[in-house]
Order: sequence, then C-alpha cells, then structure tokens
Amino acid sequence: MCGVFTRRDPKQIDAEGLEVHHIDDIENYTDKIDVLVLCSGSATDLPLQGPEMAKMFNVVDSFDTHAKIPEYYEKMNNASNEGRKVSVISTGWDPGMFSINRLYGEAILPKGKVYTFLGPGVSQGHSQAIKEVKGVLNAIQYTIPVEEAMAVVLAGQTPDYTTREKHTRHCYIVAAEDADKTAIEQEIRNMPNYFLDYDTTVNFISIEEFNKNHRKMPHGGFVITSGNTTKENKQVMEFSLKLENNPEFTASIMLAYARAAYRLYKKGEIGAKTVFDIPPAMISTKTAEELRREIL
Amino acid sequence: MCGVFTRRDPKQIDAEGLEVHHIDDIENYTDKIDVLVLCSGSATDLPLQGPEMAKMFNVVDSFDTHAKIPEYYEKMNNASNEGRKVSVISTGWDPGMFSINRLYGEAILPKGKVYTFLGPGVSQGHSQAIKEVKGVLNAIQYTIPVEEAMAVVLAGQTPDYTTREKHTRHCYIVAAEDADKTAIEQEIRNMPNYFLDYDTTVNFISIEEFNKNHRKMPHGGFVITSGNTTKENKQVMEFSLKLENNPEFTASIMLAYARAAYRLYKKGEIGAKTVFDIPPAMISTKTAEELRREIL
Repeated sequence: MCGVFTRRDPKQIDAEGLEVHHIDDIENYTDKIDVLVLCSGSATDLPLQGPEMAKMFNVVDSFDTHAKIPEYYEKMNNASNEGRKVSVISTGWDPGMFSINRLYGEAILPKGKVYTFLGPGVSQGHSQAIKEVKGVLNAIQYTIPVEEAMAVVLAGQTPDYTTREKHTRHCYIVAAEDADKTAIEQEIRNMPNYFLDYDTTVNFISIEEFNKNHRKMPHGGFVITSGNTTKENKQVMEFSLKLENNPEFTASIMLAYARAAYRLYKKGEIGAKTVFDIPPAMISTKTAEELRREIL
Repeated sequence: MCGVFTRRDPKQIDAEGLEVHHIDDIENYTDKIDVLVLCSGSATDLPLQGPEMAKMFNVVDSFDTHAKIPEYYEKMNNASNEGRKVSVISTGWDPGMFSINRLYGEAILPKGKVYTFLGPGVSQGHSQAIKEVKGVLNAIQYTIPVEEAMAVVLAGQTPDYTTREKHTRHCYIVAAEDADKTAIEQEIRNMPNYFLDYDTTVNFISIEEFNKNHRKMPHGGFVITSGNTTKENKQVMEFSLKLENNPEFTASIMLAYARAAYRLYKKGEIGAKTVFDIPPAMISTKTAEELRREIL
C-alpha cells in the first residue's frame, strides 16, 4: 500500500505506520498507485474531487446521494474515459450491497415488491452533510425504521410506502457558541435529498454529552423482496446487515471493489462502473477455479 | 417462447397453451431457440444431456451436485466452446443465490466465517436422486437444519461444523410392491454427495399418505457471514429465503439467468459461465441507466 493522502497537515495524522502525504502531492504518485480509495463525503467533496482524481487514477468511491447518482456517473465516466482509467462509484452497502439485493429481488421476482428499511443506526452520509452546515462543530444522525411499517411487510403484505412512512431521522448536534441554532435547524430540515422528505428531529447537545453517548457508529437494515410466482405460492428473499461499525464495514466493501477496479483496468476496460456492472468473482481473492470448487 | 421439449409423449403434457415437442426433434429448432432452459436432474440426466445440448444451444441449467461442479463445468465449457454458444451452469438458489452470498461474505469480511443452513424444506435434487433408485415409485426428501447449531452461530460464535452437524435429511418413499426395501434404504444411505455425509432417516409410506401429506415443495435457508473488521467491532451479513414453492423459485432464477446467457452470446462471448461470472445488471430487465437511476 502506498499511503494515505490528506487535506490536513500530514504530521497530525496517525495512520498506524502507513505513509501520510498531503493531497497536493498526489500528482507525483500517478505511477505508484494501482487504485485510489476516495474516503471523502458525497455532499460537497466527491462531486469535485471524484472527477479530478478519476482523470489520473483508478478510483473507488462511496458516493451515496442516491438522487444525484446519474449526474455523478456521467461526470465520473467522462473523467475516467479521458484518463483511460476505471472508476467504481457508489460502493458501500446502500448504495452498494443493498442495491445488488434490490436488483436480484426485482429480476427474480418480477411480480414482487422490493422494500428497503434502514437502521436503527448512524448514517455517515447524513452526519457528514450536517457537519458541513455553518456553525456545526460536530454532529451525528440516527436513522430509525418505523416499526409498524416493517411489521406489515414482514407479514407478507405489499403496501406502497413513501420514504417518510418507512423511516424517521434524528440529529444530535454540537453547535458553536455563537451559532444561530434556528438557522442550523432550518437548513438541515430543508436539505434536499438528505432531510426534506423525512420526519426529522434536531437536538442540540453539549460536547461532553456528544463524546459520552454518540461516539459509536452502529448501523444495519434490510432489503426484503416479497412476491408470488403463482397465485398460490409466495416467496420471500431477505438480505440484512447488523453492523457494530458502519465506516469499517463500508471500507471493507470499498477494498473488495478496489480489487475489481484494478482487474478491470488490467483487462483494458475504461470508464465508470457500478456494483451492478461487476461480476461477483471480480471482488474475490480466489480464482474462478477455486470459487467453483469451494463455494459454488 | 418456442415451447417445451420432453422425453415423454408430447400429447400427454399439459403446457398451458405452449407448444410441446419431443426432445428428439430439438435439432430442427437450432435457429428458433435463443436459450434452452434445462430442467432435468443433476444425478444422471444433466451430465449427459447438458453437454449434448450445449453444443447446439445457449443453455441455462441448475446442476446442483456441488462436489461434481468442477468436472461438469469442464464438460460444459468444452461443449459450449465447440458450438460457439454460452452456457450458464448451476443457477438456482444453492448453488446460485446462496453461492453469490457466500462469495460476497468472504470477499467483504475476509477474517469472518460463512455458514450455510438449509431448510426446513424439500430438496428437489435429493428427491430426484431417490426417485432414480430401483423400486422407488415416488419420493420426497426434507432437509432440516440442526437448531442448536444455528443458535450458536446467530449468537455470534464461529465454530467449525461438519455438514453432518448442521443438517439432518429425512426421506419419505413410496416403494413398488415387490421392492427390496432394505436394499433401497442401503442404496440411499450410501449415496455419495447426496446422503453419505448426513444423518439420514428413511421412511416408507403408502401412496395415499404421500399424496395427502407430501405434495408441497416448500424450502428455505440462510447464508450468514459473521466476522470482525477490528478487534472491537463485529459485523453480520445475512441472506435468507422463505419459499412456499422451491421449483417455481428455482425456475424464476433460471429465467433471469437466461437473459444473461442470451446477452453474453449477443456480445460474442462463448463457453460456460457461473453466477459468479455474471454482472448483476445482466439478469435485470432494466437498462444500465434505469438501474443507476431507480435502484442503485
């Protein structure tokens, strides 16, 4: 591994023995980096940093603003094509593993319905979006599935839910002393894609309370496809995650897709890909022969 | 759709309005069939029929004798290459969807452990294998997970289990009047790959009892990957199926992979593929653009 590139002062970063460089130096490493794993936020970082890096490197990111994926894909595809490199965008678990399970559900049970429930847990993307609001020192956002809605689906019914009916969002914020809390709350509640379509509660807390009660990053959720193959027979597919630490799990998925990015590049492919475009075998450390023999 | 091809008398088959042809006529349909879905058994049918058909057609099958997949793959790959066609082998849910989830689990949590539990439910492959034993008129096989073993894994432990420790197998058989029941029971218990490695019970019942209590084909099971990303943090991935009718669900998966077989063929690919080699997008009815916009 080549090292960590940061916008902060490299001397301030403890990377547990890895080399740490300033991001401004990254152009000197174009021949040393097989794949660059972009760990920055979707709200304002990746839309600029993603295409810039994709011109120089094979990249993997976890861009997670669902509504803006088509637009981001176009930019990343153009950048990767220009640099003749491969980018794998929107990896992680949602978008990512949950998306794959939505696809398999739809494709296999075309007369069924696919439901995604998130949480209870901390959304990194939403926490990051709040942190970027002026006057916010630290913040965390919990997504909670609406229990009544889940119970209906698990009982085999297939209602139409709006996003608002399936989840609520709860924000815990440490604000600067001189911050306008009403303005912060309004900006969060009206943030399109992130909070506008949800019942959101905003709580301001002290730095002490934040550090005591809100330092863990658990998450989870499930994708359920419920559908009939004939009038008589109902079939249920379910994928679920119970994560004690969301960032570590997301990083694990990104590393698995970094393998795929490099393999695709070595095969001569260029452009932006999503998890939908990548054969499962490409993220495994095993050969095709080993996979057939050991786990097929 | 072109129709159904059968080894039986086509006049005896009710295919709900579809054309029914004798399998011996299939060579006259090489220019009319985009993909042939092979619905025969893995024990004795597919090892002969698979390669024969793969020389003439794009095919999809559900070959499910796990231990013989490498050997079957070689035969199918040679046949498909010879005919310049595509075969997608061992689709269904195990092998198939469960295999994909084992791969994702291993690749994402390399320090974790992957467990597959099957049932409670009817195994088509094992029922078919029993039906081919001399003197057996009809038969059904139920696979039951060992509850104690499941509880340990769900509690977050990662023991090493043998196949025998995870499941038991229960056979219900209608034998011919003059059949040697002791010989039937011995042949089943000693059948390699199918029963030899399991605690198997064999029950002989009347045709009346069979028709009354054993006509449904439910199945299910789950793939659990449990592993730590750091010393502190455990992560659990789970995929599960609850199927009221196993053959209908397996057929639904085969049809989804028939799409992939045809698309691969149209792209100029040849040879045998498994579910590991096929990008999720290839089994969807949606375009790449629709998938990115709607379900990523």
